[in-house]
Amino acid sequence: MSVADVTVRPLRPSDHAAVITVIDDWWGGRRMADMLPRLFFEHFTDTSFAAERAGELAGFLVGFLSQSRPAEAYIHFVGVHPGERGAGLGRRLYEAFFDAVGAHGRTVVRAVTAPVNTGSIAFHRRMGFEVDPGAAGCGDIPVARGYDGPGQDRVRFTRYLR
Amino acid sequence: MSVADVTVRPLRPSDHAAVITVIDDWWGGRRMADMLPRLFFEHFTDTSFAAERAGELAGFLVGFLSQSRPAEAYIHFVGVHPGERGAGLGRRLYEAFFDAVGAHGRTVVRAVTAPVNTGSIAFHRRMGFEVDPGAAGCGDIPVARGYDGPGQDRVRFTRYLR
Repeated sequence: MSVADVTVRPLRPSDHAAVITVIDDWWGGRRMADMLPRLFFEHFTDTSFAAERAGELAGFLVGFLSQSRPAEAYIHFVGVHPGERGAGLGRRLYEAFFDAVGAHGRTVVRAVTAPVNTGSIAFHRRMGFEVDPGAAGCGDIPVARGYDGPGQDRVRFTRYLR
Repeated sequence: MSVADVTVRPLRPSDHAAVITVIDDWWGGRRMADMLPRLFFEHFTDTSFAAERAGELAGFLVGFLSQSRPAEAYIHFVGVHPGERGAGLGRRLYEAFFDAVGAHGRTVVRAVTAPVNTGSIAFHRRMGFEVDPGAAGCGDIPVARGYDGPGQDRVRFTRYLR
């Protein structure tokens, strides 16, 4: 299987059911579906993407142009099928997002992840993101304590588009 | 207590902690905090509002301009302190949103609610929303089955701005 056989296209409202069906599974049983209400599949389709192999969902990215910060864009959620990992599909989805938001004049891309998600932290660094300073460290990684609510610490990333 | 003593102002990132602290309580113990990740308090502050009475949170509205549907705007979440209900604060928050999105040329406002939330359905009708047709009825109300995922039925509303 080559990632070259995967098609990346804009996300559609009709993708919501397929994503919700697989997402908790792809995330190792963690309850993630609540983070993806249908609104993202209706109103941010020009900066969100689905990846398909032979018509089956291989991955997706949900992101948007910041409405109140005109230089910024934000990646909310990314999922890659466990059988598709390590082959560059995450990179392709991020690059599709960088191209889309760059075309809208955005120069700063932001994202966050949970400190426990070391794979995500490493991936963001490989993709050229810097880790924002945090109030408290967790090992080597600066962490924003309670960023998404009590107990919901986050590592914050920033990537500058040239 | 009069709603005239309540100030409505744009939402700020620093409001996130206060909202997350009270929201499950205001919703009668239902787990709602997951619907309000901090991203809404960072990136949609020009169409989202906090209401304050003497510096205390009395209510809030989180909404946005649809990015991919240029005529539309969407109300994601609204909360009013139980002690402030029935006095017109929800109406004030919705009118602030209508004014803000109308100034951006938006002519259609959408929102959804759970079919069980009869108070919300009645409120939206009073505010001039129509209920969108659904595939299946639930009593008198058309419902979109599984709109936000399996078992997550929704009543969908549309309000036209003149």
